[in-house]
Amino acid sequence: MSELRKDPIVNRWVIIAPDRAARPYEFEHPPHRRRDQSCPFCQGHEQETPHEIVAYRDPDSRPNQPGWRVRVVPNKFPILALDDPPETPHDDFYGMMGGVGAHEVIIESPDHLVSLTDLSDERLAEILSVYRDRLAHLGEDPRLAHGMIFKNAGAAAGASIEHIHSQLIATPIVPVNVLGEMTGSLDFHDRVGRCVYCEMIQRELDAQTRMVAHDPGFVAFCPFASRVPFETWILPKNHGSHYENTPPSDIGQLAGMIKRVISKIELALDRPAYNFIIHTAPFDTPELGHYHWYIEIMPSLIKPAGFEWGSGFQINPVAPEDAASLLRSVNGDSRGP
Amino acid sequence: MSELRKDPIVNRWVIIAPDRAARPYEFEHPPHRRRDQSCPFCQGHEQETPHEIVAYRDPDSRPNQPGWRVRVVPNKFPILALDDPPETPHDDFYGMMGGVGAHEVIIESPDHLVSLTDLSDERLAEILSVYRDRLAHLGEDPRLAHGMIFKNAGAAAGASIEHIHSQLIATPIVPVNVLGEMTGSLDFHDRVGRCVYCEMIQRELDAQTRMVAHDPGFVAFCPFASRVPFETWILPKNHGSHYENTPPSDIGQLAGMIKRVISKIELALDRPAYNFIIHTAPFDTPELGHYHWYIEIMPSLIKPAGFEWGSGFQINPVAPEDAASLLRSVNGDSRGP
Repeated sequence: MSELRKDPIVNRWVIIAPDRAARPYEFEHPPHRRRDQSCPFCQGHEQETPHEIVAYRDPDSRPNQPGWRVRVVPNKFPILALDDPPETPHDDFYGMMGGVGAHEVIIESPDHLVSLTDLSDERLAEILSVYRDRLAHLGEDPRLAHGMIFKNAGAAAGASIEHIHSQLIATPIVPVNVLGEMTGSLDFHDRVGRCVYCEMIQRELDAQTRMVAHDPGFVAFCPFASRVPFETWILPKNHGSHYENTPPSDIGQLAGMIKRVISKIELALDRPAYNFIIHTAPFDTPELGHYHWYIEIMPSLIKPAGFEWGSGFQINPVAPEDAASLLRSVNGDSRGP
Repeated sequence: MSELRKDPIVNRWVIIAPDRAARPYEFEHPPHRRRDQSCPFCQGHEQETPHEIVAYRDPDSRPNQPGWRVRVVPNKFPILALDDPPETPHDDFYGMMGGVGAHEVIIESPDHLVSLTDLSDERLAEILSVYRDRLAHLGEDPRLAHGMIFKNAGAAAGASIEHIHSQLIATPIVPVNVLGEMTGSLDFHDRVGRCVYCEMIQRELDAQTRMVAHDPGFVAFCPFASRVPFETWILPKNHGSHYENTPPSDIGQLAGMIKRVISKIELALDRPAYNFIIHTAPFDTPELGHYHWYIEIMPSLIKPAGFEWGSGFQINPVAPEDAASLLRSVNGDSRGP
């Protein structure tokens, strides 16, 4: 029997349909990924990317030369760029604006690694600091409204290069999904007098059924209205609306939690492709009592088809309680489930 | 240079980023589809599906036996079913309801065809009549709010079986995307005193730049704020809000237009996978002056990745003007572009 479930933040309905998982599948599986001999993200290939914006590198090394640990470059095929766009013709029916923005690539290792679980906690913490630095820097550009950091890991998740990297896209308007979270969480705050995410963390810690992992600083669970199988959120227990304001002292703990959760997903699902997204408040907002930054991990096990496109409903064949139970049962690190 | 474009109906922004199309791609292409030797949708395999709901069949043939031309069966792995759901526990935070609904499969040929362009116009018109009949029938069930007919053609579009078929999912609540179209078009009607879709048809016929094909009854164009490359809409020129009220005399002409447009897409893009969706008004509404039913065809050439999931922005690397120009230039039928 299926269930319709509503997300309490943005009132998004999903259909949890476990019987669908048994459906036979007639097409062949996609082939395994191949390693490219000339990866532009590997150390020694620095000239194959646009000039670096910033890098964490050895003190005696030079920009666009080896010696770096994390490297940020403009995307060679940007969705948006910081050049001032030409005047767009006015049309009273069709809205249009020039595509000003930023599109950066964070190359997360000089070596050809394909999973962030191959990084040490210290290296991962450095990457998380780079995310923070880039958001803080771009947030000062008055033309930019919001910055989204995301990772497409694996071809099925939309990656075109397998070497571990993330991307940052800063947009001149607040994306509609972020706007939905802002207004949904503000509405809850007005009604209940509390952050809806803090409320959710408390309920999930109490219920335990959807819990994946937690430590003193962070909590990871499969959300009640998960849109895809094994969707997992990581949230800071301390309220904060802007990822870029995360205290440096918390970054190390966050790195540990991310590695632990991704390791569990990789163990449980045999290294699936996935998307990793940091949800954070718009640039020009002060610290907000009603919004709470978080990380969303979406394994690429199903793809949206006609019904999802047309209706906006996501159909999820795995109940989040079952997903969380499996993720708890596999060991993601030495600390146990 | 990218452009941000806004859909005038639901105010959905997309990013048209033509430079992205040049991006190199490191992973291998998925394999070609294989034919299954024991297709449950082929004539002679009627016992491998649930019992048929209705079929267009030869007068002397019997239900669940050969002799049919179009056959409707319940989905064997339904997302929603018409059984009354159990009482769901009340929760003041997490919304939930039992998944009552209908999930039917329309098997569109007794032979193992893989494209609707292999059907004659007459056969396709029969299928379009079955769509109409099923929507009209399910619309009488007071538990159902909306019916969506869609087709996933090809593995990359989410199909698990290649034999041509469509699906109908009827839901107990109006899907969020349909709700968005209802409120967006009502708002336009309140402001301008006209159907936004009729306005769009007129503007596209005048501009010609995004036009794919038209005839006395129907028009096909790539919408201004296309979310995916070669997205194409087919709309009736005469205003109507409910697909199921399409006059029988128009069904033959619609079949011709659908075949013409899909043929063009198959010729231009080498038979891509695609989704086909009928957008129509909720069941319990009368004929509406502000809403206009239409068919949306979405080729599966790109997949949503982290940025799309997180932001709600779709990034489309092909401008709809370029897509329409290519679709006009290929011959989809004897009538020419």
